[in-house]
Amino acid sequence: MNIWKRKDLVALSDLSVEELQFLLETARAFKGVGERDLKKVPALRGKTLINFFVEPSTRTRTSFELSALRLSADVINISASTSSLTKGETLKDTARNLEALLADIIVLRHSSAGAARFLADRLQSSIINAGDGAHEHPTQGLLDGFTILEKFGHLQGLEVAIVGDILFSRVARSNIHLLIKLGANVTAVGPSTLVPREFEALGVKVRHRIEDILESADVINLLRIQHERQHKQYFPGLNEYVSLFGLTKDRVAQLKPDCLIMHPGPLNRGIEVDSDVADGSRSVILEQVTNGLAVRMAVLYACAGGKGIVT
Amino acid sequence: MNIWKRKDLVALSDLSVEELQFLLETARAFKGVGERDLKKVPALRGKTLINFFVEPSTRTRTSFELSALRLSADVINISASTSSLTKGETLKDTARNLEALLADIIVLRHSSAGAARFLADRLQSSIINAGDGAHEHPTQGLLDGFTILEKFGHLQGLEVAIVGDILFSRVARSNIHLLIKLGANVTAVGPSTLVPREFEALGVKVRHRIEDILESADVINLLRIQHERQHKQYFPGLNEYVSLFGLTKDRVAQLKPDCLIMHPGPLNRGIEVDSDVADGSRSVILEQVTNGLAVRMAVLYACAGGKGIVT
Amino acid sequence: MNIWKRKDLVALSDLSVEELQFLLETARAFKGVGERDLKKVPALRGKTLINFFVEPSTRTRTSFELSALRLSADVINISASTSSLTKGETLKDTARNLEALLADIIVLRHSSAGAARFLADRLQSSIINAGDGAHEHPTQGLLDGFTILEKFGHLQGLEVAIVGDILFSRVARSNIHLLIKLGANVTAVGPSTLVPREFEALGVKVRHRIEDILESADVINLLRIQHERQHKQYFPGLNEYVSLFGLTKDRVAQLKPDCLIMHPGPLNRGIEVDSDVADGSRSVILEQVTNGLAVRMAVLYACAGGKGIVT
Repeated sequence: MNIWKRKDLVALSDLSVEELQFLLETARAFKGVGERDLKKVPALRGKTLINFFVEPSTRTRTSFELSALRLSADVINISASTSSLTKGETLKDTARNLEALLADIIVLRHSSAGAARFLADRLQSSIINAGDGAHEHPTQGLLDGFTILEKFGHLQGLEVAIVGDILFSRVARSNIHLLIKLGANVTAVGPSTLVPREFEALGVKVRHRIEDILESADVINLLRIQHERQHKQYFPGLNEYVSLFGLTKDRVAQLKPDCLIMHPGPLNRGIEVDSDVADGSRSVILEQVTNGLAVRMAVLYACAGGKGIVT
Repeated sequence: MNIWKRKDLVALSDLSVEELQFLLETARAFKGVGERDLKKVPALRGKTLINFFVEPSTRTRTSFELSALRLSADVINISASTSSLTKGETLKDTARNLEALLADIIVLRHSSAGAARFLADRLQSSIINAGDGAHEHPTQGLLDGFTILEKFGHLQGLEVAIVGDILFSRVARSNIHLLIKLGANVTAVGPSTLVPREFEALGVKVRHRIEDILESADVINLLRIQHERQHKQYFPGLNEYVSLFGLTKDRVAQLKPDCLIMHPGPLNRGIEVDSDVADGSRSVILEQVTNGLAVRMAVLYACAGGKGIVT
Repeated sequence: MNIWKRKDLVALSDLSVEELQFLLETARAFKGVGERDLKKVPALRGKTLINFFVEPSTRTRTSFELSALRLSADVINISASTSSLTKGETLKDTARNLEALLADIIVLRHSSAGAARFLADRLQSSIINAGDGAHEHPTQGLLDGFTILEKFGHLQGLEVAIVGDILFSRVARSNIHLLIKLGANVTAVGPSTLVPREFEALGVKVRHRIEDILESADVINLLRIQHERQHKQYFPGLNEYVSLFGLTKDRVAQLKPDCLIMHPGPLNRGIEVDSDVADGSRSVILEQVTNGLAVRMAVLYACAGGKGIVT
């Protein structure tokens, strides 16, 4: 009956169509729990989750922490800046030490692609990838997919444009894997330095002008511009980026009436998107945050072996 | 029956006499809970509280966290230094993101006056002001009032002196609003740069010599001198402050026998107050800390819609 | 029946043989709990533990936090870097403020020897020493003793060598007190600057050549070399240390077949110990981490007055 057999969630590229659908359906049940006055269910009572963030992220850490608490799990947080687990230790040693602490679930954010897989292969604990370098951020991909599905009722045949720094984006990769498996048509949009032709190998179209997708898109997912860490040589100036790829009011006027505008946050208002557009009726940016809780509850529940129905 | 209808506690200036009395009476019931061996009640089981401290304060954060745990709520902490919620975001965006996380209660400490009101007006969550700039720190005002009430049995007609940096103090403002509403006579004492005549508009007397209040005071509340952040131009040197306003043993000798000495902590021993005086029989400084738990339990309970009697 | 009457665990030098045995036996019961699918027992439900770490240690903090959660206690963390409890306060003031918060248990890590005793003498809360300067780290001593006991079934008559910086090591002191009381023969091994003859007063043998203990040792406990904080004048260069005291493969070849290799972590691979040796069949380094949970559960349970049997 239950088609989920995995202890880990490392990458959406690993998952079958059925597994993706199972997580999205489970998330739908948990979304109902979040709308109750009492948002807590006993599904993971007595289980321990370690939020291990070697790269900081309050937003994702908070979402996982709240999701776990709503499942009645115990949660402890370890961050890189304070962690002697990482001081002079290899990732292998860190992994082994975490295992020796007998945690049921480890949520890992790490700057190196492959870090979550490395732990998943070596530990009995469930490993949930909360972002590993430029590789994947699977719960973000799931929550984006969930949000689209909620609005359209299906993904099959939808035109989804992902705009921005695709090259360095784990969010983009997880989105692409999910969307293509579930039948959407994906276009990657951005300057050629950040959206090289090679992306076509993933099954997406590549466009270097945002105008090419405005009239056809059902969904536009705007990636966050990471001024601070982006390699300068790949990136035009901010003003040039805004003029070429920013979702301005003029461009929004060309969209289909029901086109969704998404962003993983935090927003740079006036850069990826005009402030009024971000707050407008097409924007589902805050619903993405709420849906993140439902999706993460589903992932934790599935991987930690939650039994029976969601009640 | 229950006269408390608010979802938020933003400022004591908002509250009626009846509302203030309701919170103080509820706090009395919760103080009894803190004296039990088992200090936990199920009043907020299944509710989630986010401690969102954009300005650091271990002391206040810890007090709210313990209070919430004793009410069986789930608590998560977000601090400014680690928060990507605030990175490049307006307070409005931060507020909306917190709402999207479906927290029942958000405890906010923020350096800007008005930040708590801003959130309270925009979010469905209960907002508890844990200090906003120089505006208010309502739970500190309540715990100070509670402590005085516990000792004297009433506030009506008491002479309360607040000494120090009134101009920049949210603690002073919250104290003044509560004390005047509940019938105490308040005198603000300090150098004219920090206690300008304009304070009389709040209904307090203004004095620039501590000697003026020593013989008449029933309560002396000493504000913490904030060396690090005070505007230099407003402030005399530390030695001059001690000689003019420090509560020394000689000055204590002039007090009424049952005059209470209060301080919101942390103490600068030898500055606001002599070390022996701080540890003496008149000092209720540590009782203030304990009472902070009872008062915060009462506030969380009232605002989050705790049902029925405290058990 | 229950021979444990203490509210605190400050130092293993305080404990009788019977008290040490009681904690080790209680830990054995709790180790069984950790092997269950549901690792949680209600023993300390409703009790509050404050992890107060004035000196950072993710590893020890995490272990105490997990142990307390498995006993169903509520846990809050206060770290030095963020603590206004310590800003301009004496340890005495900090202690009193913690007491005023009505915590049942305070776990203290502090850079000053004697800090835990100071609090234990002044507070009604249970004080658990999580390391105080170079004095003691009693739960580390207990978990090391527990690990040896688990392998050999007894400590009486075993030859235990502790290698490295004994002079500045609280781990060494706690180990020495426990091992000698329970009948082991202890040899302290290291350069004469770090292992002076004066240690013989504690009842241990002193050796300055690791070769002297290789053939006779039943257990070798390798202390972590603390490059960053060690006084340079006491310490040879790293290369010289490795060549004189590092546990290399060549040296391991001279050990008894069942000699245990221990290390409190985190490892400096290639310094205290060869990487292959640390991962080899004699190494119980990760079991020490797991046993830390059982031992800390036992200590918290005993000091906080856990009633009845472990279930």
